[in-house]
Amino acid sequence: MPRYAFKIEYDGGPFAGWQRQADQPSVQGAIEAALAKLEPREHTIAAAGRTDAGVHATAQVAHADLKKDWDPFRLSEALNFHLKPAPVAILACAQVADDWHARFSATERRYLFRLVQRRAPMTHDRGLVWRVNNLLDAEAMREGAAHLIGHHDFTSFRSSICQAASPLKTLDEIRIEEIEIPHGREFRFHLRARSFLHNQVRSIVGTLERVGAGAWAPVQVKEALEARDRAACGPVCPPDGLYLCGVGYPKDPFAG
Amino acid sequence: MPRYAFKIEYDGGPFAGWQRQADQPSVQGAIEAALAKLEPREHTIAAAGRTDAGVHATAQVAHADLKKDWDPFRLSEALNFHLKPAPVAILACAQVADDWHARFSATERRYLFRLVQRRAPMTHDRGLVWRVNNLLDAEAMREGAAHLIGHHDFTSFRSSICQAASPLKTLDEIRIEEIEIPHGREFRFHLRARSFLHNQVRSIVGTLERVGAGAWAPVQVKEALEARDRAACGPVCPPDGLYLCGVGYPKDPFAG
Repeated sequence: MPRYAFKIEYDGGPFAGWQRQADQPSVQGAIEAALAKLEPREHTIAAAGRTDAGVHATAQVAHADLKKDWDPFRLSEALNFHLKPAPVAILACAQVADDWHARFSATERRYLFRLVQRRAPMTHDRGLVWRVNNLLDAEAMREGAAHLIGHHDFTSFRSSICQAASPLKTLDEIRIEEIEIPHGREFRFHLRARSFLHNQVRSIVGTLERVGAGAWAPVQVKEALEARDRAACGPVCPPDGLYLCGVGYPKDPFAG
Repeated sequence: MPRYAFKIEYDGGPFAGWQRQADQPSVQGAIEAALAKLEPREHTIAAAGRTDAGVHATAQVAHADLKKDWDPFRLSEALNFHLKPAPVAILACAQVADDWHARFSATERRYLFRLVQRRAPMTHDRGLVWRVNNLLDAEAMREGAAHLIGHHDFTSFRSSICQAASPLKTLDEIRIEEIEIPHGREFRFHLRARSFLHNQVRSIVGTLERVGAGAWAPVQVKEALEARDRAACGPVCPPDGLYLCGVGYPKDPFAG
């Protein structure tokens, strides 16, 4: 059974999340159904990151074992045909070694969070960004974020249902890009780590937004982290602005 | 009756176009219904450009006469509240002179057309761009576009139902921006003129796409123009990628 890796883009809006569910639409379920059109049987695919309901991806990675020896380009084209009209697209496909695993072989995850500050509601980007009314101070958010870089116990920034064995994670980067947009400002948070805890990015961005709004001092982010207490975290922000935008492997399976 | 000008952003997808219709949703109808929540009666607003079904705007301009002396900021906030959940947003509002007219006072219209070349279907930008599979040559499209700049009879690039008195128009600019995107390329067409004929932008972009694909030589754009015959035009492209993105006035009503 040859194994294939897929790079996947999706709009998380209409889905209950990545993970297959009995009674609700999921990204995993949509792709497995498309695979069943090509090789009729039950399929189970594994992803690098199991995104929550409403969370998007520009470069999720998953793998599947197939019976037939598919040409990777033709396989991606056939899957895109059968995925219609779901907002899920296979951007790239590659054959990989039998022991390559989308989740366990991954050595890095990159997330993007899009936070927009403007008065008017969103139209074209509805569901694709988190919009707030209040002015935000990017420098204060950067100062708050700096306390989170490095190896820490992230208990305060972790969902109560997080299944990770340990709350210890190393956050390699939080870069905050500030972009002028007509009648507002967009803040793009770029986060990078080997792996993340459940709700870690949304807990961090929700907390940093409070810092940007002036409700929290930047040093309070450090205090929240050191409290090792979920209750010390700021509000978890909505999923709308969150994108899984890259997964790193020792060797890029899609290169060349 | 004080007169107010509005700068309006909308997603054209769910609408039968700008213009009010008896039995279909329209952007004009949505805004007039919101105005009726503030001043209960029939309202008729006028827009700088009456966009077709599926065409978007990032900066449409319209005006309305109201009875009450509204604070412009509070007026825009109240309209945005009543426009929900329609994907229409008032970005700015200003009181203008009684003889100021969104359409007749306008001296310039700017349109953006987003054309994406990639194999995979769109997800986040679905309905917001025109996607094609084939590779496109930006230089060839620029060479073809150059034939259209200036004062011409645009009969070939005009809808058969166009109501303009004359097919003579001056096209001031067609600038084609080429942007690398993951797994594809985006071509942004920026068009600027005092006014446009019905379907002029979509006829031009549809024709230039044929040039980019190599199906037409750039000089054939000149021949099509000189034919002054609708049948000489290339295919009219879909509305999805088209945005009314600016309207110019002798004095910007929203400045300051």
